Amino acid sequence: MITFNENLSKVCNEKNNRLCIGLDIDNRKLETSTISYMDGFIKDLIEATIDLCPIYKINLAFYERLGKEGYDIVGKIPEYINKRSITIADAKRGDIGNSSKYYAEAFFKTLNYDSITVSPYMGEDSIQPFCENKDKGVFILCLTSNSGSSNFQNKKINDKELYIHVSELAVAMNLNDNIGLVIGATQNDQMEFIKKYSSNLPWLIPGVGFQGGSLEDSISIGSKNNSTSIINVSRGIIYAGNGTIDDIRSATENYTQKIRDIL
Amino acid sequence: MITFNENLSKVCNEKNNRLCIGLDIDNRKLETSTISYMDGFIKDLIEATIDLCPIYKINLAFYERLGKEGYDIVGKIPEYINKRSITIADAKRGDIGNSSKYYAEAFFKTLNYDSITVSPYMGEDSIQPFCENKDKGVFILCLTSNSGSSNFQNKKINDKELYIHVSELAVAMNLNDNIGLVIGATQNDQMEFIKKYSSNLPWLIPGVGFQGGSLEDSISIGSKNNSTSIINVSRGIIYAGNGTIDDIRSATENYTQKIRDIL
Repeated sequence: MITFNENLSKVCNEKNNRLCIGLDIDNRKLETSTISYMDGFIKDLIEATIDLCPIYKINLAFYERLGKEGYDIVGKIPEYINKRSITIADAKRGDIGNSSKYYAEAFFKTLNYDSITVSPYMGEDSIQPFCENKDKGVFILCLTSNSGSSNFQNKKINDKELYIHVSELAVAMNLNDNIGLVIGATQNDQMEFIKKYSSNLPWLIPGVGFQGGSLEDSISIGSKNNSTSIINVSRGIIYAGNGTIDDIRSATENYTQKIRDIL
Repeated sequence: MITFNENLSKVCNEKNNRLCIGLDIDNRKLETSTISYMDGFIKDLIEATIDLCPIYKINLAFYERLGKEGYDIVGKIPEYINKRSITIADAKRGDIGNSSKYYAEAFFKTLNYDSITVSPYMGEDSIQPFCENKDKGVFILCLTSNSGSSNFQNKKINDKELYIHVSELAVAMNLNDNIGLVIGATQNDQMEFIKKYSSNLPWLIPGVGFQGGSLEDSISIGSKNNSTSIINVSRGIIYAGNGTIDDIRSATENYTQKIRDIL
């Protein structure tokens, strides 16, 4: 069986792209705010971009606020994508082992996502249940792109920042070749430092575009050691121009071209 | 308007109890595994215990694995409780500020919970959106009861453990008197140390019972500085005896009596 990390590389190489479209869709910002319109919009967006886009990331916050109908759409998205691209449930879960086991079941079995983002605060046994299946991936929050990353992540424990300790745990746990890291596209020296400790783990990189990170530096640093760095763009694509499917297609083409120029 | 922490104390005092029943219900362990049976079982469980129990905690992992039908039950539970007790959505969420705002909307508005648990890894701006309404509470993960707490939480940053830094941030952010901490009932010296830094914040204490924590020590340390410590019991109540509603009632009476003896 091909591992998650191998499959991630394979799909990215086939599409010659590293773009991850973040489906942070707020129905109130669409032309019509009904759930059925939102559902159709997402389906159209996927069809208009999937020849180029190797990864789609679904941020659960945007769907949970709609209750069970939002949750229903979360379950439909992997069906719409239908294995043509990789899916990431950006859920940032993490609980005691017994509960994480149930979350893993929720996202990998019930909702049928290829991978999930998890928060490392509760440590190894809270992450382990997500890593059991080689073909399902786990992106562990490491260094995030928000200002709050300075509260704890940047603080030093025995001369190394907390995010370095998280990187090291991730490397140690990567026995199934299915673990990656979430690394905000912030300062290059931090990214270089993490790369040193994160071996060949793939990176999921948010923060490019609206949050100011550099696309070129993120890809070139993140791709060292033959690893796959993927660049998440949410607002820069889904709110491009007037937010029509045509505008979204154009923005996807633009980002794809920029990424191909760097590769 | 009464604040969340004031209301928590009020409801606990009215019921002369500090018990929080954890509704970690797995439909596969019930007499019949259908969702409608699970739904009715939870309703019966609440009716059979609500005269004694001031708080119910719903662990989302157990419901998300059921997809939209599970999410539907999550939304019904606050209706069943109908303000007779406090509800905690044990969701351990936390994301960049914009996304946390959507999660806050999901749990406080759409699902109508009184409070939520959040993970602090992403720092202050990931927690802030949950704290905006005085009457809605936020329990921040501080020191958890699982073995993974030793990976990061117990590590020292400038001579104080990470969990102490989390306590200090929680105290600094508690401007609306609606923040509490999740503190595993583990070692007494750790609990005493956190109490020193957590001022009068209420504690949500899991880990008593199956995980081996002491009920008496947890309540007495957690209640210092006139704060409210609440004791979560999940498996020790919902799987009591043969798991019938009568067995659950008896276990609730037993825990209530033990807690009243300590108070």
